[in-house]
Amino acid sequence: MGGSSRSFNPRAGQYFGPDLPDTAPQEFEQTLDAAAAAASEWRSTTRRDRADVLRAIGTALDADRGRLAQLADDETALGVDSLAGEVGRTTFQLRQIADQVDDGSYLGVRIDLASTEPLPTGHPDLRRTRVPVGPVAVYAASNFPFAFGVAGGDTAAALGAGCVVVVKAHPAHPQLSEEIGRHISGVLREHGLPIGIFGLVRGFEAGRDLVVDHRIAAAAFTGSFAAGRALSQLAANRANPIPFYGELGSVNPVFVSPKAAGRGGALASEYVASLLLRNGQFCTNPSILVVPSGSGLRETVSELIASSPPAPLLAPGVHDLFEKRRALLAGIPGARVVSGPQPDAVQSWFVSPGLVSLSVSEALAHVDAIETECFGPVGLLVEYDAADEALALADRLHGCLVACVHGDEDDEVAAALVERLTRIAGRVVWNGWPTGVAVTPAQHHGGPFPATTDVQHTSVGAEAITRFLRPVAYQAMPTSLLPLELR
Amino acid sequence: MGGSSRSFNPRAGQYFGPDLPDTAPQEFEQTLDAAAAAASEWRSTTRRDRADVLRAIGTALDADRGRLAQLADDETALGVDSLAGEVGRTTFQLRQIADQVDDGSYLGVRIDLASTEPLPTGHPDLRRTRVPVGPVAVYAASNFPFAFGVAGGDTAAALGAGCVVVVKAHPAHPQLSEEIGRHISGVLREHGLPIGIFGLVRGFEAGRDLVVDHRIAAAAFTGSFAAGRALSQLAANRANPIPFYGELGSVNPVFVSPKAAGRGGALASEYVASLLLRNGQFCTNPSILVVPSGSGLRETVSELIASSPPAPLLAPGVHDLFEKRRALLAGIPGARVVSGPQPDAVQSWFVSPGLVSLSVSEALAHVDAIETECFGPVGLLVEYDAADEALALADRLHGCLVACVHGDEDDEVAAALVERLTRIAGRVVWNGWPTGVAVTPAQHHGGPFPATTDVQHTSVGAEAITRFLRPVAYQAMPTSLLPLELR
Repeated sequence: MGGSSRSFNPRAGQYFGPDLPDTAPQEFEQTLDAAAAAASEWRSTTRRDRADVLRAIGTALDADRGRLAQLADDETALGVDSLAGEVGRTTFQLRQIADQVDDGSYLGVRIDLASTEPLPTGHPDLRRTRVPVGPVAVYAASNFPFAFGVAGGDTAAALGAGCVVVVKAHPAHPQLSEEIGRHISGVLREHGLPIGIFGLVRGFEAGRDLVVDHRIAAAAFTGSFAAGRALSQLAANRANPIPFYGELGSVNPVFVSPKAAGRGGALASEYVASLLLRNGQFCTNPSILVVPSGSGLRETVSELIASSPPAPLLAPGVHDLFEKRRALLAGIPGARVVSGPQPDAVQSWFVSPGLVSLSVSEALAHVDAIETECFGPVGLLVEYDAADEALALADRLHGCLVACVHGDEDDEVAAALVERLTRIAGRVVWNGWPTGVAVTPAQHHGGPFPATTDVQHTSVGAEAITRFLRPVAYQAMPTSLLPLELR
Repeated sequence: MGGSSRSFNPRAGQYFGPDLPDTAPQEFEQTLDAAAAAASEWRSTTRRDRADVLRAIGTALDADRGRLAQLADDETALGVDSLAGEVGRTTFQLRQIADQVDDGSYLGVRIDLASTEPLPTGHPDLRRTRVPVGPVAVYAASNFPFAFGVAGGDTAAALGAGCVVVVKAHPAHPQLSEEIGRHISGVLREHGLPIGIFGLVRGFEAGRDLVVDHRIAAAAFTGSFAAGRALSQLAANRANPIPFYGELGSVNPVFVSPKAAGRGGALASEYVASLLLRNGQFCTNPSILVVPSGSGLRETVSELIASSPPAPLLAPGVHDLFEKRRALLAGIPGARVVSGPQPDAVQSWFVSPGLVSLSVSEALAHVDAIETECFGPVGLLVEYDAADEALALADRLHGCLVACVHGDEDDEVAAALVERLTRIAGRVVWNGWPTGVAVTPAQHHGGPFPATTDVQHTSVGAEAITRFLRPVAYQAMPTSLLPLELR
């Protein structure tokens, strides 16, 4: 109802640039109508044509990399170098999905020639492929304005699949969203394609209206638990429910086995580096570190945290929620809290990194509380005495995107941890850290609820594109009427 | 609340056999606890062991085929020969899933060896496989007491995937459900496996409690729209939502192009045969037949319907709903109604087959009403004058499991129909009928809502097993800690 987005520079603590109004109802209708009208033409393009469009979007972003990264940093303070690297990741992703679309194996083609055997063995000619699911709503993330943004992996996968896309821009980077959108629209124009293939909407209400709109056939979301949960329920409770692929997680455990604890100093500094990447604003943040007591790890990590400088969070809303959630973690009975140096008066909106430490029995007594999502630079460290306690904790944790185990090769505790964590995680990492999601076909970036709302969901890797397709089998169909890949 | 199931013989119109009480809360808890306790052992079995168990269940059912088919016919009147054939289909399905489990390609293994290239190309060793999703609830169907029953495709796929299963028995065949359950439990005992791997519950409340139970990780359902929709919403609105694979559809369109209308007599008799299979109680029932006006098809189909004898429906509840829904169809403005001979006084609970005919403009004016699910022997015939009208109707229909087109090879109308129907159907059949779902890897038995609650869902074919698995990626994991298929 007349809201708007304006860029906020988290370092300067100041709003800047134009006030971009939320998408008004009439504009929303036009955008959705244009998407629906363009759907048929886009799904009928060849795979080669769609791959070309994805590559051209990548080329356009690469050519504008410096300016886009600077604008993104002005709007989010996530770091201009890191953001320039993210542009590279994003265009790599666009090209990788383009290659996948060219290749066609994502269609999962299966052909069973007719068999005249008696039933139940005999059957007609059956050929299965995948077809576009329909117009897709993409909800862009705050913390990866490129890779999970307007032209991020979800948009690339949906366009590659043959689906038109309407993106809900994230209010933390409104100008960047417009700029990326302009690049996509420019590429569509250059290719003589309808502009409606890509749409962009702004504002809370537009986001809510999108997931219940009759023209939308699937939705992909990266963001907070509360927003993702609400949208996923709207999607499920529609008169005609649609698939909702929500990635909501940022609470990921890292276990250090007793045999690995001797690596103390290196582990501690690697942990803190991973925890504080982009000031803790990673969905693969290593929020929970579980270590043997008496290993000195708590002391070393505490010292590192205590000497890490304050830094800004990407948006005022993120800041406010972080402070609330940090207080919840710090309030767990038994918690020992360490904080970095407080921000000075000039940069009073910066936040200090923090560490909350508990014994394993304290953690087990408040297992829901320890998994409170606290998006930002705070870690929770849990100390165990006996290995059984670490395993008991692993058994009690919620679903997560990624879990890590630090251990030795001949390490029964580490082996048991890998087995247990496989039950709750979408990715299990050995002797490493959860941050950094490699863009490779074998990647799985998903996980059991609450990491995602759809346990088979992945937003990175070869399977990401299948979210926007559905299978169709053709029975006894003449060759001329079959999709090309089935002939 | 003290309900019970008792077998009903639809031919005799009489209840028979023991009164089987609904699963009491305490028994429900024991069944679910046993399932949860057995989950770890079952998921740790080798694929070979699980395949052996599936084959042994098939062997046990085959050995008892005659007795089981007779009991099923006593309880459902679906026909003893048809039911004996269905036992064969069911055990074929068990063996086919066993072969798939042996083969292992359903795990979708993907291995990306580490690359030391610079980012974003470089990446650690990443290997993806699929792991069991957890304990599965299976809701058995009324109309295929074997193939979609207690040991049907859903149970076979879930067990094959490594998930323990709790089946909600269908009240239309309570004794048969017990007997099949005994065979499964017997096989588990013979293999020295925990009985908890397979559980059986009875009653409306047990069914509702199952989908919200914290020990259940996924659910598969075949049945009515109302029940499936209610259960899918319960699944989506849990504190931790679970995947719900509901197959709810039985409204499937068949289009006859002007060029194919000359086949008149054969088309009419094939249509009526497909429509009346198992007295119309097929989820792939050809409920809507769209034909050129003036082709004589309406008259021929009407005559065949008018001379088809009354027959029983499988359960009193099915009977009552059928009568209600048939009245709704017959009440569509403009509807011309034909009925077969009325049942005599002795068999007053039998139902007569029926045909409701409309013009395409009448159908388009009541497009929701024409898709009213009427589970039983009633067809809706729609006549069009111009081909455009047939296409307009195809564009307005809801999602369906299967759509059929009768046409010639050089037939633009038929080609356009195939293209349009691909947008709403899970399977598109050329010059054939929707009934009869071949058990082959390329099969897709699913479709857009309301055919199913999950558009990627299939309950038949190579992909059926993936419903009960979820992907996991291992990063930099030592060989000894990897699942066998990833080493």
